[in-house]
Amino acid sequence: MLTLYYAPGSSSMAPHIALHEIGAPFEARCMSLKNKQQREPGYLALNPEGKVPLLLIGGRPLTEVAGILFYLARRFPEARLMPEDAEGQAQVVSWMSYVASTLHPARRISVDHARQVFLQADKKLGHGGWALGDYSVADIHLFRLFWRFVGYAEPDPKDYPNLFAHHALMMARPAVQRTLADEAASGAE
Amino acid sequence: MLTLYYAPGSSSMAPHIALHEIGAPFEARCMSLKNKQQREPGYLALNPEGKVPLLLIGGRPLTEVAGILFYLARRFPEARLMPEDAEGQAQVVSWMSYVASTLHPARRISVDHARQVFLQADKKLGHGGWALGDYSVADIHLFRLFWRFVGYAEPDPKDYPNLFAHHALMMARPAVQRTLADEAASGAE
Repeated sequence: MLTLYYAPGSSSMAPHIALHEIGAPFEARCMSLKNKQQREPGYLALNPEGKVPLLLIGGRPLTEVAGILFYLARRFPEARLMPEDAEGQAQVVSWMSYVASTLHPARRISVDHARQVFLQADKKLGHGGWALGDYSVADIHLFRLFWRFVGYAEPDPKDYPNLFAHHALMMARPAVQRTLADEAASGAE
Repeated sequence: MLTLYYAPGSSSMAPHIALHEIGAPFEARCMSLKNKQQREPGYLALNPEGKVPLLLIGGRPLTEVAGILFYLARRFPEARLMPEDAEGQAQVVSWMSYVASTLHPARRISVDHARQVFLQADKKLGHGGWALGDYSVADIHLFRLFWRFVGYAEPDPKDYPNLFAHHALMMARPAVQRTLADEAASGAE
């Protein structure tokens, strides 16, 4: 049994999308960050860092977007969210590490710094469509960060042509549309 | 054929240690960051980001510490640097993501912020020895960041008992000693 603890619009959106891509049954538990539900004792017992996302696998906690995305892709190979060979999987982990270590903390340094690193990410992505040939969890992770960047930095599409094209590909996916709809319908902030 | 591009003391130390743990043949190419060798055209053709580490696998580039560590652990299972099941591997990816996204950028925000996140890391590590029951590439990644933190923040061992115990366990490993000796002997800065 899989249970995802998420907060609408937060980085937990990435595993939420992956779960909809897979189509396996899961329980989604919505947390209100505004009401600091992630700091309540019951939740801290599961995740002492007090952050979302958290995935419970038969009751065992797994944290970090990249860790959860890797798990879902590896456990449900029929969803084709990751290659099966060592080098292909390593390239997916590498992209997710780049997203987590370079794109995710950028805003905390400054919005100008974020603009610079997303220019670099646009070059790294290139104009081939997906991050790594075929669609993978790396695309989901990248999409969530760029989606957020679009919201807070209001970038000019001319400056980020590859990322905006990627964003459009992702927005066309039913799993993404369903996740955005579910998270909006939760009403939580 | 494996080729590691590294700079002494930099984050490339982690894959350098993993390669010594595995014992497979590899070529180590030392880069001088002081002389900006990572910005030379020949290197930028392999890694447009101009960073170390870079692993060439039969000439194909793989970047990011977590990506390279995952690859080495997955390709050489006999070295036992990662569990073989999906959930166990996901926990390793999760720890490495935490190290890359929380510990690695901390210093850039401020040394005080770094002190706070390493206090959190000390709690997360706990007093069980290794990050995840058995020794894994997650320990190598964590060690490199804490080793660097010890160098720039001069922390009091009383404040970080679990991380200092982990550091001692790592320093006792022949692969770590050999990596530190090799990187020091390179003479590069």
